[in-house]
Amino acid sequence: MQEGEFDFIRQIRKLVADSKKRTLIGIGDDAAVIRGRRKRVYLFTTDTLVEDVHFKWRFTTARQIGWRALAVNVSDIAAMGGCPAVALVTLGLPRGTSSSKIDEIYRGILDLSSRLDIEIAGGDIVRSPIFFITISLLGEAEADKVVLRKGAKPGDIIYVTGSIGSAATGLICLMRKDVPLRSEVRDFLEGKWLFPIPKVEEARQIATRNLSTAMIDISDGLSADLYHILEESEVGAELWMNKIPVDERTKEALPKLGKSFYDVVLEGGEDYELLFTSSADRDVEKSLDFPVCAIGKIVPDRLKLWLIDEKGEKREIFPRGWDHFLS
Amino acid sequence: MQEGEFDFIRQIRKLVADSKKRTLIGIGDDAAVIRGRRKRVYLFTTDTLVEDVHFKWRFTTARQIGWRALAVNVSDIAAMGGCPAVALVTLGLPRGTSSSKIDEIYRGILDLSSRLDIEIAGGDIVRSPIFFITISLLGEAEADKVVLRKGAKPGDIIYVTGSIGSAATGLICLMRKDVPLRSEVRDFLEGKWLFPIPKVEEARQIATRNLSTAMIDISDGLSADLYHILEESEVGAELWMNKIPVDERTKEALPKLGKSFYDVVLEGGEDYELLFTSSADRDVEKSLDFPVCAIGKIVPDRLKLWLIDEKGEKREIFPRGWDHFLS
Repeated sequence: MQEGEFDFIRQIRKLVADSKKRTLIGIGDDAAVIRGRRKRVYLFTTDTLVEDVHFKWRFTTARQIGWRALAVNVSDIAAMGGCPAVALVTLGLPRGTSSSKIDEIYRGILDLSSRLDIEIAGGDIVRSPIFFITISLLGEAEADKVVLRKGAKPGDIIYVTGSIGSAATGLICLMRKDVPLRSEVRDFLEGKWLFPIPKVEEARQIATRNLSTAMIDISDGLSADLYHILEESEVGAELWMNKIPVDERTKEALPKLGKSFYDVVLEGGEDYELLFTSSADRDVEKSLDFPVCAIGKIVPDRLKLWLIDEKGEKREIFPRGWDHFLS
Repeated sequence: MQEGEFDFIRQIRKLVADSKKRTLIGIGDDAAVIRGRRKRVYLFTTDTLVEDVHFKWRFTTARQIGWRALAVNVSDIAAMGGCPAVALVTLGLPRGTSSSKIDEIYRGILDLSSRLDIEIAGGDIVRSPIFFITISLLGEAEADKVVLRKGAKPGDIIYVTGSIGSAATGLICLMRKDVPLRSEVRDFLEGKWLFPIPKVEEARQIATRNLSTAMIDISDGLSADLYHILEESEVGAELWMNKIPVDERTKEALPKLGKSFYDVVLEGGEDYELLFTSSADRDVEKSLDFPVCAIGKIVPDRLKLWLIDEKGEKREIFPRGWDHFLS
């Protein structure tokens, strides 16, 4: 994420927007959707972590970076309702990188890939003045089960899995070792940032049970990612502040870290939870084997985002991404 | 390519070498081969160009970099006998990158992708202190037509397409604007480096007509890439120096540039021509619609590479890669 990134994406989308025979969904969703055979599609995505842009070595180990680089890609495939399958790993390595560092990066990747039955099929190693890791991931799904960002309708209820803001709070904990916090609180929150768990099984349930009209993973932040759904679906939304699930440990840490609900819950990112919309007549909570929270609803006003705050007052808010933390 | 790269690849290959259900061929060939449906396979590859490592802006335009970044990936799919299909583009962009630069990069990508009917399905943009471009490319092939680096047998004849050393000479031309050369010579050679044409049609013919036992594209250099075939096939080779096709313009430029046949023909890279081996009883030249040159033969001595020089003298040579030019 960077200033102007979304402008660049719009620009590129225009440039490459010619007729497509194989690409059913191109730029503008979590992953590209490629026509497969026999009612199946391939999902194709890539994500990059750059040293000092997306992470700093002093807060993370090589193993955590390997895990994270794969996790963010898996989360994109999951958010479309797909199964991740095969990955390629590119490492940009500064001169003098030790073989033990590469070993640790791969151990992090393999920790997650073996859990999720993903195969590492190859990749590339290049010299680079700064470290970066790019992973490309290929997944699969049934053509009629793919869930896009497009598809949310006025009246739909907005749901999230898990709790929101823990990862952002965890990153702040990592940067503020000086702030006294109970170790149980600090460990939980830091772990949430260091080892994000992509919600593959949960997303597959949502997709294969035809429960959602649109879905995305929360990487940029709740307000920014909801806004992506609003843009692609051409609708608006209201968020119910006191319904947004926030872990008790996040609530305990926030005031000590000098951060607000807005900073980490609305604008923090990297939780890799699922954000999805469902028709109001579906009993979503009973239809799933895991808990979800209804946190708002889709409204007709195109690209308007309203917050009903803790006092029941309604006001417009504006999406704000995650990049203001690290950069 | 970098010092120690091949050691890192060996290390990684060991780490990820567990049982694979979908990956038929993983690390160690031009592209990964993924099990498809109905006797088809997917080919999956990725390649990265890093500013000041793989190219310098003062020798190249953004459009050329876009073209090149796709071309090197296409060449990997071609070298397996496959058809390139769908690509993702990741750009690492320093602060202040102009939108016109991104435009030009994409125009270069699209110049080549539209020629070859490749679709750009998406990608990623990240901030980075240095510019880099990573492309991931997915292709397809018939399972029984895929050509690996493994498969060369003693007695097989070694062939190349096109002429060798032009691109390496072209890069030296770009770096040595002070050397007087006929403009026709300079333009031809520089163009060979700036706009490499991956040999997709040629490779498809070689593969679908079952003519080759092993194949690779020449990216690292003739001796280094032949050595990759020797490693995977566990054989040796002899090269016939005076049979290696070298363009007259390369021969004209070399002495003026102070470079030798060895520098650019054996050790230069980035021609993206095809290097393949065929059983000696196949009439390869008559079986193809384009010219190829027989330049040597496979011998039993494992990992030995011999050169029969212009005087008919035989001596052992050692593979040397391409990275000593730019770095």
